[in-house]
Amino acid sequence: MSSEFGRLIKISVFGQSHGEAIGVVIDGLPAGEAVDMEELAAFLDRRRPGKSPLSTSRQEADAPEFLSGLVDGVTCGAPLCAVIRNSGQRSGDYRELAQRPRPAHADYTARVKWGGHADMRGGGHFSGRLTAPLCIAGGIAKQILARRGVHVGAHLAAVGTVEDAPFPLYPSPALFAAVAAKQLPVIDDGAGERMQALILTARQEQDSVGGVVECAAVGLPAGLGEPMFGGVENRLAAALFGIPAVKGVEFGAGFAAARLRGSEANDPFVLQDGEVRTAGNHAGGILGGITDGMPVVARVAVKPTPSIARPQRTVDLAATEETELSIHGRHDPCIAHRAVPVVEAVTAAVLLDLLMEGNHGTF
Amino acid sequence: MSSEFGRLIKISVFGQSHGEAIGVVIDGLPAGEAVDMEELAAFLDRRRPGKSPLSTSRQEADAPEFLSGLVDGVTCGAPLCAVIRNSGQRSGDYRELAQRPRPAHADYTARVKWGGHADMRGGGHFSGRLTAPLCIAGGIAKQILARRGVHVGAHLAAVGTVEDAPFPLYPSPALFAAVAAKQLPVIDDGAGERMQALILTARQEQDSVGGVVECAAVGLPAGLGEPMFGGVENRLAAALFGIPAVKGVEFGAGFAAARLRGSEANDPFVLQDGEVRTAGNHAGGILGGITDGMPVVARVAVKPTPSIARPQRTVDLAATEETELSIHGRHDPCIAHRAVPVVEAVTAAVLLDLLMEGNHGTF
Amino acid sequence: MSSEFGRLIKISVFGQSHGEAIGVVIDGLPAGEAVDMEELAAFLDRRRPGKSPLSTSRQEADAPEFLSGLVDGVTCGAPLCAVIRNSGQRSGDYRELAQRPRPAHADYTARVKWGGHADMRGGGHFSGRLTAPLCIAGGIAKQILARRGVHVGAHLAAVGTVEDAPFPLYPSPALFAAVAAKQLPVIDDGAGERMQALILTARQEQDSVGGVVECAAVGLPAGLGEPMFGGVENRLAAALFGIPAVKGVEFGAGFAAARLRGSEANDPFVLQDGEVRTAGNHAGGILGGITDGMPVVARVAVKPTPSIARPQRTVDLAATEETELSIHGRHDPCIAHRAVPVVEAVTAAVLLDLLMEGNHGTF
Amino acid sequence: MSSEFGRLIKISVFGQSHGEAIGVVIDGLPAGEAVDMEELAAFLDRRRPGKSPLSTSRQEADAPEFLSGLVDGVTCGAPLCAVIRNSGQRSGDYRELAQRPRPAHADYTARVKWGGHADMRGGGHFSGRLTAPLCIAGGIAKQILARRGVHVGAHLAAVGTVEDAPFPLYPSPALFAAVAAKQLPVIDDGAGERMQALILTARQEQDSVGGVVECAAVGLPAGLGEPMFGGVENRLAAALFGIPAVKGVEFGAGFAAARLRGSEANDPFVLQDGEVRTAGNHAGGILGGITDGMPVVARVAVKPTPSIARPQRTVDLAATEETELSIHGRHDPCIAHRAVPVVEAVTAAVLLDLLMEGNHGTF
Repeated sequence: MSSEFGRLIKISVFGQSHGEAIGVVIDGLPAGEAVDMEELAAFLDRRRPGKSPLSTSRQEADAPEFLSGLVDGVTCGAPLCAVIRNSGQRSGDYRELAQRPRPAHADYTARVKWGGHADMRGGGHFSGRLTAPLCIAGGIAKQILARRGVHVGAHLAAVGTVEDAPFPLYPSPALFAAVAAKQLPVIDDGAGERMQALILTARQEQDSVGGVVECAAVGLPAGLGEPMFGGVENRLAAALFGIPAVKGVEFGAGFAAARLRGSEANDPFVLQDGEVRTAGNHAGGILGGITDGMPVVARVAVKPTPSIARPQRTVDLAATEETELSIHGRHDPCIAHRAVPVVEAVTAAVLLDLLMEGNHGTF
Repeated sequence: MSSEFGRLIKISVFGQSHGEAIGVVIDGLPAGEAVDMEELAAFLDRRRPGKSPLSTSRQEADAPEFLSGLVDGVTCGAPLCAVIRNSGQRSGDYRELAQRPRPAHADYTARVKWGGHADMRGGGHFSGRLTAPLCIAGGIAKQILARRGVHVGAHLAAVGTVEDAPFPLYPSPALFAAVAAKQLPVIDDGAGERMQALILTARQEQDSVGGVVECAAVGLPAGLGEPMFGGVENRLAAALFGIPAVKGVEFGAGFAAARLRGSEANDPFVLQDGEVRTAGNHAGGILGGITDGMPVVARVAVKPTPSIARPQRTVDLAATEETELSIHGRHDPCIAHRAVPVVEAVTAAVLLDLLMEGNHGTF
Repeated sequence: MSSEFGRLIKISVFGQSHGEAIGVVIDGLPAGEAVDMEELAAFLDRRRPGKSPLSTSRQEADAPEFLSGLVDGVTCGAPLCAVIRNSGQRSGDYRELAQRPRPAHADYTARVKWGGHADMRGGGHFSGRLTAPLCIAGGIAKQILARRGVHVGAHLAAVGTVEDAPFPLYPSPALFAAVAAKQLPVIDDGAGERMQALILTARQEQDSVGGVVECAAVGLPAGLGEPMFGGVENRLAAALFGIPAVKGVEFGAGFAAARLRGSEANDPFVLQDGEVRTAGNHAGGILGGITDGMPVVARVAVKPTPSIARPQRTVDLAATEETELSIHGRHDPCIAHRAVPVVEAVTAAVLLDLLMEGNHGTF
Repeated sequence: MSSEFGRLIKISVFGQSHGEAIGVVIDGLPAGEAVDMEELAAFLDRRRPGKSPLSTSRQEADAPEFLSGLVDGVTCGAPLCAVIRNSGQRSGDYRELAQRPRPAHADYTARVKWGGHADMRGGGHFSGRLTAPLCIAGGIAKQILARRGVHVGAHLAAVGTVEDAPFPLYPSPALFAAVAAKQLPVIDDGAGERMQALILTARQEQDSVGGVVECAAVGLPAGLGEPMFGGVENRLAAALFGIPAVKGVEFGAGFAAARLRGSEANDPFVLQDGEVRTAGNHAGGILGGITDGMPVVARVAVKPTPSIARPQRTVDLAATEETELSIHGRHDPCIAHRAVPVVEAVTAAVLLDLLMEGNHGTF
């Protein structure tokens, strides 16, 4: 059991890349929340491949069908199930992979876990395609949060060594929208151009490149989250590592905090319009696992797309000998930019859960 | 609810820094496991302060009393409870903090959450002292794992900008032991000396400094963990962020993977003595959330100790005005080195849980 | 969050009676398990209405479509999702119910919980129709259990005051099959005839009648389950109360044990073919929450169908005044017999979860 | 893992009958709740043995020590841990039991689960003594609930075939208090005398007798609980089966509902002082798993004390042969009356958890 997260709101993802359908069950959504289908479609479109040379030319029709949980487009309290039919898979591309696992993919570990029964076609349940149902859940969560004044946005903070400008101390919903509207979701268009060049170069060289996604949530009240293992960081990290290719999660200054002095990293408390705020946000909006009223800021490391056209060394599991593998098919030279809405989606889902749970420290 | 983690083995931590006692309940330990009390005491001693100028001069007697779960020093299957009595607290040092929250501490968020009822003395339930019961749980887990050939070790990978040598591809239990025996748990003694100098300088300057802990586990079988949100990374990260001051968690190449090409980051599969292994370990032993049989490698960012002697800006919550705060008392100029056994402890606890759960992919 | 149960195997049910579809996600099924679709269809057929005057004349086509989790009819380890399309609903029958809640239904509580947004058509998510996806999950669990020598069967132990013969001390799979093949799933055909008469009388009198389902599982090893709140009884009861209309759950002698002396209720341990067994089974196969190797026996109380044709008193929530309600439409005069396979399904699902978890008391 | 229940409030019980101590961790209690220690002591006293010939002459000093979670007797938000030291055990009485399991006890299943490592002294972790920490948790929950106008009370509904009067439709807190003050907690003193005679007869005959506990909670709002597996019944049952010797749980009419017609069992909705109520309470205050605003009523079957002085048949596990066993020591001829406060405690703990969770159906 595993393809699920959440506490009051449980999000359960199902499907394999080349099976009948992929989908999601969201159990615990509050009733009375309208789902703006156009807005949701626009959000799903942000992760969809096939839109530019920066991603795979595979076309995926991600239009979800809602099987339950909605009455006239409004949540009714019952679990919401949405599915996306699969189509146009070229399973042939993957047939040999069961025997010759692709480096850095889950082919080998899936086979160890599930024996010869694992569905290896297109990465099966481990495919990046499974982020589409995550985006359905997160897209709905974003709409519900926005109605409460909580806005979640993300940008492509880095591709390879090219870095975008960081979020300002208080990112605005308008900035989130502006970034999301770009082909590469960056703040600094110059950085975006250099990223684009880097991605296209990697593509030409039959290679791929990694990146970093920075995500922020503004408008959360202080006092959400629980101490120790129930904190906001614990719950966000546990969910964010569920996104394929994520290898690191940090909050606020994160790993950079390790190189700071306390006098630099400590955010002084200040009064701002009568509200307690901090002068900086090295804490990423979270102290002791609990929100402090500042924007929650997370950064997520996305490894380079494991599927590259270059020949790679692997092992032939049937013959039990080392061999070489060339991965054909259509692949993204970078997935970090497509991960941007997915990180938003997962973050929004966790934060909605936390917000609904509320601050029950007193009663 | 929160101060708990685990699935088959639940570890529940309780206590406040200046309350009667701190402790832990471990529910689900297998029966028949002897607890080597000397080995456990030696492990607890590794996180204990007061041993050198590198940490606070506070003396903590961390000798645990076992209230349940053991018969003649052997686990009996029933939940194990161990407590450590508190003593020698100087609560006076902290009395004013309820009103003037310390920057980068949980004082403010605890107050928002629990109102004036929060126990602010010594950081209360958010105190680093709560890592002692974690080490009891993890120290026992380490012993049980070692009997199954699984060894967990960690080193101080960085203090400020000074970096230790990384773990080799296959760290040995002997290396773990050698590192653990040093005053600063490092691989490269030269780096250790530079770290020590850095820490003492920070102390002289009434400041503090952060660091990074790298932890490895060797001997785990392939096939542990579940896809998506039940993966080894998800579960380790969720628990590791429960250690106070942790602001980032990464696996294998982690954030560095974002700067790599796929051709660099992909670990080729190779055959080694008939076993499938990978030539490198950028994956940190985890592909698709599931162990691949290589060492599991995690790195954890520890922020600088928030308590520094320098005056800092904060807010007087009673007077609702900005003010200045000088933190007196005995504090660590760096906590990253004391976090080393804690990271081992939490990692061991999560891995024991995973190992007991086993690979139930087939049945 | 709620429409889910299980630990290693999570079963998540979704759908409303008159929505697009109902369905189930089963996350954590072991890989390599063939699903016999004919056997599953036959099992689903047992709960299907419209087969006799003993149940509603509504026709439900319960043929599930499998969206994920299977490759060529064999589980692949990924979450399995199956859906059943809804069709032929007559929502008109229910329109007024939102305003005038039906006694003993969830109409009123759903409205309190979800406001005017609750889907009241056909009982919405509270409809007995939601037991169809439960039977998909349980039917698959039954097949997997049977391959391990664990067989689950149930019979209609009572309708009103008419009681069937109890299960023998060791019910056989053949008995389970014989009972399941009957129109009314009873052991004693004479009792079955009297039950049938009772149901038809209730129908004629525009009334309904309750019953009791007894379920047994044979072939389980001793040692499954955990003490106190993780016991087999706790987990079975928590799941069985999820079946609509269930108001009581008991194990072994159950409530009758309250009227016994210890000398009667205590099952003596005996040796049988070298195995430890008990001479009776007042414990229902469970001591201290843990299986003792005897058949696990549960009994479940099913209240009379709340929908009856007779006029009933209720409240007009809009006008805030008392009123009368006549429920039209097609309703079961008794649902206890249709609950028999559902109780088997839920029991099988919980037991498969327990069996996969195994006895990890030692390691 | 198992000796724990709850969602927002986790209650984790530890200890063995003859170990150092027994105790409980309550994680998630709201802050700012004063614990009235006298009231708590009086509550604990209700389950204490040694007070009359109706229970064992064992003296247990159940005075809890609070190790954490309280500051000046008020909850501070951090996990509360309370322990009760064990003393005066006569382990000698039990030594032979590891080899010759007592019928109807967990001796045999504990041994299967935990091998020879199980702590069999005094029933170990399965001892009824573990209900003392449950009563600490539940006693605190009762106090917190009472401040919100929610009152939980129980009575001894039956001993053997002697039945007490049932609770009235709306039991009052005054009735709860009056019943709790009696030696046998009954409503009808005549029934109480007959029960007392029955218990003393059983004692004289070296036997024991079972009983039924009825528990009610008044003052709960409508709308608590979730559909299907997250309902109030599911959660109460899962916790109540954690009380040793409980073999059945029912709500409202429970098993009696199986013998009713719908026209009898359906509770008509009525208006009472402008509030929606039901004319009867066959539903036990729960429809579709969700509270309807009526008193929540549960009944719990308690089997006869398994420890009886009469010789009983059992198996010698070492010699692998059948043998006879005479249980010496001090035992209760009936535990149902001592279970009354325990049922209240567990019910209160579950209901406080539900009440804190609130009705998040809309948001």
